[in-house]
Order: sequence, then structure tokens, then C-alpha cells
Amino acid sequence: MFGKGAIDGLKDILDRRDGYKVYLIDGYFRDRDILDSLPIEGSDEVIFVDTTSEPSTADIDSYRDFLVEVGKGSPSTIIGVGGGSTLDSAKAVANLLTNGGKAEDYQGWDLVKKPAIYKIGIPTISGTGAEASRTCVMTNSKSGIKLGMNSDFTIYDQLILDPNLTKTVPREQYFYTGMDTYLHCIESLNGIYRNAIGDAFSNQAIELCREVFFSEDMMSDENRERLMVASYLGGCAIANSFVGTIHPFSAGLSVVLGTHHCIGNCITMGAMEQFYPKEYEEFFKMAEKQNIEIPKGIAKNLDRETYKRLYDATIVHEKPLSNALGDDFRDILTLERVVDIFKSM
Amino acid sequence: MFGKGAIDGLKDILDRRDGYKVYLIDGYFRDRDILDSLPIEGSDEVIFVDTTSEPSTADIDSYRDFLVEVGKGSPSTIIGVGGGSTLDSAKAVANLLTNGGKAEDYQGWDLVKKPAIYKIGIPTISGTGAEASRTCVMTNSKSGIKLGMNSDFTIYDQLILDPNLTKTVPREQYFYTGMDTYLHCIESLNGIYRNAIGDAFSNQAIELCREVFFSEDMMSDENRERLMVASYLGGCAIANSFVGTIHPFSAGLSVVLGTHHCIGNCITMGAMEQFYPKEYEEFFKMAEKQNIEIPKGIAKNLDRETYKRLYDATIVHEKPLSNALGDDFRDILTLERVVDIFKSM
Repeated sequence: MFGKGAIDGLKDILDRRDGYKVYLIDGYFRDRDILDSLPIEGSDEVIFVDTTSEPSTADIDSYRDFLVEVGKGSPSTIIGVGGGSTLDSAKAVANLLTNGGKAEDYQGWDLVKKPAIYKIGIPTISGTGAEASRTCVMTNSKSGIKLGMNSDFTIYDQLILDPNLTKTVPREQYFYTGMDTYLHCIESLNGIYRNAIGDAFSNQAIELCREVFFSEDMMSDENRERLMVASYLGGCAIANSFVGTIHPFSAGLSVVLGTHHCIGNCITMGAMEQFYPKEYEEFFKMAEKQNIEIPKGIAKNLDRETYKRLYDATIVHEKPLSNALGDDFRDILTLERVVDIFKSM
Repeated sequence: MFGKGAIDGLKDILDRRDGYKVYLIDGYFRDRDILDSLPIEGSDEVIFVDTTSEPSTADIDSYRDFLVEVGKGSPSTIIGVGGGSTLDSAKAVANLLTNGGKAEDYQGWDLVKKPAIYKIGIPTISGTGAEASRTCVMTNSKSGIKLGMNSDFTIYDQLILDPNLTKTVPREQYFYTGMDTYLHCIESLNGIYRNAIGDAFSNQAIELCREVFFSEDMMSDENRERLMVASYLGGCAIANSFVGTIHPFSAGLSVVLGTHHCIGNCITMGAMEQFYPKEYEEFFKMAEKQNIEIPKGIAKNLDRETYKRLYDATIVHEKPLSNALGDDFRDILTLERVVDIFKSM
């Protein structure tokens, strides 16, 4: 369901689904107006997702445990309302409730065996593509590795894309998150493993990003609508392709320094001219046009051990790195070169 | 599932689904090689769909009756293999088996009340978008009106898009059917009712059509892959927009003269310069580039009563016509003008 005010259609969908519902809502919205537009009933359960850190497998386990404890472990529907972290958390909880065990049991490819609880995604910020993708990224609380439950069962059954919901996003965050779409699409299009369907989604998403970020007001009604579509198409693109070098470095920042995913990508981009020269130029032109500052120097003066951890957390992403650089990516991305890249961010 | 050889993945999907399956396969493939690549088992039922005429509500009722009679009325999965007529037939049968009644009971918007049988779509020709749309067009055997079961339940649960399957399509048919995507996308983009998501799908589909039909060999491996993606995106576009004047006139040809949908669109295009001048020019350049002849004069010398029937079967399409021409489309499309348009095709 798409368009301004589409959120009003949620009640109709839920009325047709017997039984109580569970909402996972970005903690940012606690005590905010958005709650009034959700048809929450007395028998429903609401979990506010703390998005200070990105979701961990322990977080997902604890949401499930809580729901079971309060007798809300078999909802008819799970509704995720928020950004990538919240949308991913809702997907993971929906899988876990029907499949049992622990969240980490399903980190990988096609490990989810049973259909999840029916779920509805309602993004409140555009860019991550979490509303469309077949994964839900979690940091493993033990190993520290970021990996999702890649499965057809992870895909939302219904989406409500309402551009009214992104009106109050802070400008910086709007830019950083929107750029997630632009960046993973340019990574896909520059990769070795490509296909016509991934390319088509990526091309159209990039086109929309350009319209939005080269315009005078990236947050006009029309542009928030466009970016919502771009995010959705970008999510479809990810589902059919691989990222490149940006996301692995950004994941390194997340795991070792706790940097959030989207700003981490933008920071990483500052050191990516060597891999994506044309896109590097375009990216910083868009940032300049929108008067957005990209933080610099975040990984400049770290100790040797931290750089080693950054290297490890980056180089572990074999699929995207070999997509970008070929199978001998380890010869290209030596420890020294990786450290230099982090230093130059 | 997408790519050359993707059809080989069908067995894996079906192995995970207990119970017998029902295949609806385009009658064209009876005794052809394609059957060898389908994992049909002894307990499964196969229906060959006669696509001489487009599907009628009576056809759908009779497929359902047959399945119930032979004790195959509750399959775990329905698999549709073919072009638009076959894919639409499979969708309609899947709805009818769980909802009961007659096919005509569900012609309209959101009349299907229960989820359909799980269904997998495997297109063998590109262009109609039936693999992606939320409708299944049928001619009502009593009223003669063409109308689909527009419903979220009509959407395929799984698609297999394998460009190997379109290798043996005759060149003319490949062009006519592929053009269905191009034409409904230009109708959408020239319409009054538009939105960012429909526009995005349409723009990308048109871009791919141009690549295919302005190339030296529209049926190369890469181009068959592109057109398969264009068709899918075009189907997504329809689901989010309306067509314009071409499809109503083409529907008139179908209902009154029995012309097939895709060639009917191309024939109609010959009289559409007044509504779509730029696209008219581009369309005929593509036809020329591919050395495809568009039949002329099909509705030139008909009697007055037949013209009146053509007019009635065209003007009944209120939504697309008001999308193209505004609410006073009846004042613009007078009987005389409509007759002139049919005569000039």
C-alpha cells in the first residue's frame, strides 16, 4: 500500500486478521504522535525497540522470551514500524516465534525452516531497503559478526509505504540513510556478479536518488515519496545482487567502533575514491548540494590492535569483497592497505 | 528465482511442499521438450490450457470442476507454465478452488475473500506482466466483458523467471507480446493518475524495452533476459497505475473480433498518433528495426452494427479512458470518432 495517508489502511488489514497483534516500534516514537495513527487494541502487545545499538541476536531472543512470558507468543500478525533496525528486528522475531531455538541458529542462508508469523512492514525512514529485502541483519552477541537470516520467509507479507511518516526525520539522518540505497546500488552495478533484474532495480533506484539529492529540497513531499520508492527498489536490488567494498568497511566500523550502518557507509565513502572514482565525486556533490557534512577522521588515531580488529571485521565479508575485487581480494586488501583506508576516512 | 536454468530450482521448491500438485501448462507445449524439465510426479495433475481464445469464466469453472471430479481439488501447489492466458488461468483456478462459487463471482475489485492455493508462475514468453500483476483477466462468458479478479490473493507466491524458456518463441509473437509492456507503461506515464512507484517501474521497463527493440538482435540471450525483467517490472507498474486509450481499443478488438490481446495492442497503436505522438513514432521505429509488420485494415470495412459493438466494448473501460482523457472522455470519444479510429487501424 503506497502513498500519503496509506497508514490509514492498516486498520482494514488488521480487522481481517483474527487474534491479537504484536507491534515492534522504534523507541524513537515512544510518546510521539505516530502512535495515534496505529490501531493498537487492548489485547495487542507493543515492544519499543531500542535502536541506540543495532539489533543483536540476544536482543531478538529477549523480545521472543518476553512475548512468550506475557502470553503473546502466537500473534496473528507482527507489525514493524521504524527504520532498518526495527524492521529487521520484527522480521527476526516473526521467524523465531514459529521456528524456535535461538536467533543465531538462523544466521546464514536458508536456515529458517517454517513460515514466519504474518508480518507487515511500515518504514518511517527511507534508504536501508529493509522493507523489501530477504534478510534481517543482527550482530551475533558472541562472535560479534554481523549476519542476517537470509530466507524467503524473512520477506514482509505486506508493506505500507506512507511518505507522511518520513516528514520529521532529521535532515542529516535523512541523507545518511537515503544514501544507503545509492551506495549499495553503485556497489552492485560495479560488481562482477550481476544480472538483469538486479541491474534494473539498481539503475532505477539510483536515478531516483539523483533526482532527490540534486534537487533544491531533498525533503519536499515529492522527494520523500521518491526516496521511499528508491529505498524499496534498492531493497529489491540487494535481494538479487551483492554489495562491494563500501559495506564491508562500514561493517568494520559498526562492529569495532559501534558506528551506525548508514552514517558508517557515508564515512567509508570518504576513502573509496580508489574503488569508485565517478561515484565518489557524485556522492560528495550530492552532500554539498544538500549542505550535509560527512564526519572525517573517525578511525585516524587508533592503536594497532584496534586496526587489526577493524581489518578482521572487514575482510570477513568474502562475498561482497570478491564481487568487487575478484577471488584474490585478500592480496589486494592487505592489512597495511586496509589500515590506510581506515586512516583516510 | 531468476536466471538461465532457474527452472531447475522448481524441484527443490516442490520437494518442500507435501501433497500433490496441479500444473496448468500452455497447450502449445503439449509433446514438447519443456515437459521434461518439469518435475511432474504420478500423483500430480496436468491441465493443458487451450490458448486459441483468451480465458473465459466458463473455462476457469470447467478446470475447477474437472479437478474436483478427478479428486485433485485440494493441491498443495498450482504451477502455471505459459504466457499471459495460462498464467492468468492458473491464478484464477487457485482462487476458485479455495473460495468456491463461480469465476464470475470474483470479477471486480477485492471480491476474493480467502487466500488462494499456493502458486508458482513460470512465464514462457515476456511482456504481459501476468507473472507480477494482481489480476487475472477473463472474458465473462455471459456479458462478454473482460475483467479480472483484482485481489492481493491473485498474486503469485513464487516466480521462476528463466530466459531459456523464451528461446523458441516465434519472432512476431515475441515482438507483439514484448510490446505489451512498452505500451502499458507509456499509457501509465501519460495518464492523469500517477504515483512515484508506478512511474519508477514504468520508466525502468521502458528503458529495457528500448535496449531490446533497438538492438540488432532482440532475441539474443541478454535481450531475452532483459525483456523478462521488463515484463516483470511492467507487471508491477500495472499493479500501481492505470492504462490509457490503447488497451480499451484493443479490448474492443478482442471482444468483438477475437483478436489476441498483444497483437491487438500493436494494431491499435497504428491509430494512436493523435493520443501518443512521440511514442507512436518510437513504436514504429522499433517495429521497423526488428523488421516486424503490424497488420493493417483489420477493422476497415465492417457493418454499422459491428462498429457499434466495437464502440460499446471500448467505451466501457471507464478507468483507463478517464486516466487518459479526463472525466469527460465520452465527449471526446464520440461514436463517430471511435469508428474513425477503428477504420484507420
